[in-house]
Amino acid sequence: MTDVANRLTEREALALAVSVARRGPGGGANPRVGCVILAPGDPASPRSVLGVGWHRGAGTPHAEVAAIAAARTADPAVNLTGATAIVTLQPCNSTGRTGPCAHALASAGIARVRYAVEDPAADRAGSDAYLAGHAVDVRGPRRFEPGEFDEIALDSARELVHAWLSSMALGRPYVTLKIATTLDARIAAPDGTSQWITGAAARANAHEVRAEVGAIVVGSGTVAADDPTLTARTAEGGLAEHQPLRVVLGLRDVPAQARLRGPGGELVHIRSRDPRAALRTLADAGVTHALVEGGAQVSAAFLRAGLADEITAYIAPKLLGGGLSAIADFGVATLADAAEFAFLSPRMLGEDVLLTARARPETFHGKDR
Amino acid sequence: MTDVANRLTEREALALAVSVARRGPGGGANPRVGCVILAPGDPASPRSVLGVGWHRGAGTPHAEVAAIAAARTADPAVNLTGATAIVTLQPCNSTGRTGPCAHALASAGIARVRYAVEDPAADRAGSDAYLAGHAVDVRGPRRFEPGEFDEIALDSARELVHAWLSSMALGRPYVTLKIATTLDARIAAPDGTSQWITGAAARANAHEVRAEVGAIVVGSGTVAADDPTLTARTAEGGLAEHQPLRVVLGLRDVPAQARLRGPGGELVHIRSRDPRAALRTLADAGVTHALVEGGAQVSAAFLRAGLADEITAYIAPKLLGGGLSAIADFGVATLADAAEFAFLSPRMLGEDVLLTARARPETFHGKDR
Repeated sequence: MTDVANRLTEREALALAVSVARRGPGGGANPRVGCVILAPGDPASPRSVLGVGWHRGAGTPHAEVAAIAAARTADPAVNLTGATAIVTLQPCNSTGRTGPCAHALASAGIARVRYAVEDPAADRAGSDAYLAGHAVDVRGPRRFEPGEFDEIALDSARELVHAWLSSMALGRPYVTLKIATTLDARIAAPDGTSQWITGAAARANAHEVRAEVGAIVVGSGTVAADDPTLTARTAEGGLAEHQPLRVVLGLRDVPAQARLRGPGGELVHIRSRDPRAALRTLADAGVTHALVEGGAQVSAAFLRAGLADEITAYIAPKLLGGGLSAIADFGVATLADAAEFAFLSPRMLGEDVLLTARARPETFHGKDR
Repeated sequence: MTDVANRLTEREALALAVSVARRGPGGGANPRVGCVILAPGDPASPRSVLGVGWHRGAGTPHAEVAAIAAARTADPAVNLTGATAIVTLQPCNSTGRTGPCAHALASAGIARVRYAVEDPAADRAGSDAYLAGHAVDVRGPRRFEPGEFDEIALDSARELVHAWLSSMALGRPYVTLKIATTLDARIAAPDGTSQWITGAAARANAHEVRAEVGAIVVGSGTVAADDPTLTARTAEGGLAEHQPLRVVLGLRDVPAQARLRGPGGELVHIRSRDPRAALRTLADAGVTHALVEGGAQVSAAFLRAGLADEITAYIAPKLLGGGLSAIADFGVATLADAAEFAFLSPRMLGEDVLLTARARPETFHGKDR
């Protein structure tokens, strides 16, 4: 912690908790969570930061336990009695590879807990009830005072676990289809040229997204055609700390010299064209968020199966008038049967636009989803 | 004027001038301009609004003259000596069907002029020099004090005349291609269904845009296939006050029963597929802004000729995976030859997204543009 961050209000502590949560790996079995412990005192006034923790991945301590441990490491004599824990996600109350966070918070003497996002599983396990029963003043977003927390920080906290929570609800990995296209939705010109349709800022963002998912999925045809590396790279060009699984879908062999056999995430070849089978394999590997990067046929297979939860479209201000379309035929004949989504707010990324569209729960694309 | 608007600061007066400018018809020989005359006094303090004027179309008084007239109508004894004129566009200094505005302002006794956007033609005609030579304190955007005017109002003033100024510079009508597509850039499903891809908010916006252009252009194939009305409608469904020319491009006859022969703008059938010939005809009719609404072949013809200055894309959060593409082949074989534009900030329109992309002056699409 820098000096300037040594005293924070609860609003500021939530923003910090969201920031540190992002350090953890996304797309795996556990959600990214951050926790900041503040000394006792007036909720609206800046108070000393006693500990900061985040979840570093399956099998390691949850954010709350990590924050308590950090406080004790920083000051072995620290007294957490009466302290406040600001957490991005509702504390768990079940015993997995680590103990329940609700118990850890209460037994450390924490007297006040604020969490930004509800976790239905924690709720079912009686997390709030446990804490309240141990004299902890606990509140989630439904019971916040107006303005108690910054709406932008709350949004960020929700986005951080959107795929994970959706995966829990769906019982399968959350699926994002990524496309990078011209304004007329082409992913290659008639002669096959496709590098680069989008600019540097969009490509850097795409690498950030890769570092936040559990698996990147492409078709074996794309591997043969483009020889992609499917790594997550930092702005400096090096490999990001977290590398998603590199998943190839389809019957064709992955060439021995393929670049995706080089440094990066583990290679998983699923010899099937069935998206459902692929998601079962990925779920078994602990993946909760899969990023499908094409080609057009693989994206279409997920759409046809009703298994596209989100579309991430990087759109360049260019027109081609021909070439390869981003999405192949997925069985829609008439407009009323189009796959329907809902846009999040669009944003500029350098010269390009990023459009994010999410499946609308009321209009499932596939009956059997 | 309502009471609350009877005293305005110069910043507020510019916002009002932009608003009233919009009442005038766009896309014609003259730009849309608004003018607000404020009583003498401290520039930063609210002052009485003496007159408000806007340009109502070719052959009618310019905004400045209209504002002076409005002041005299409101109070026949009004004394404009020492008053301030806030204008959206640099006053003209040439004699067309009406006299030069610079002369009208000076001879009315106006002592201070602020205009939001430069007009190169007015500048060449010595507008600022004339006013300064008549003891008028005149300034345009290059000489504004920081914060003297609201950046959003200045942006709005520029947008109001962007097509007109571009048309003057290009020596032909400014061309906007409009497309309304799915996220995969389809304008119809495989079975031909296309109504409605976009939602009510996007369609309402498209009607507002129609009311701001001089002509709507479609191919004769689109007339045969869709039987469009090509009118500008208000939110209530009635005809807007200003109706653009309805221009059909192509060799096929317009059927006697075609809906675009009904109430609305004048029908102009140009029996040619050449966009240049069409623009010459439109220029002769006083059109400075043409909205090309398809089909895909007509849009492609304009792109092929390097005559697409702006793309207005209404994008629905839907995927079709097949059907008719928005833009037909316009001769691009490789990515390096794509038609390149620059996006303005994207915005949501109801459930859809509006993307506006403008030709970049440094990358003209056609050599002969």
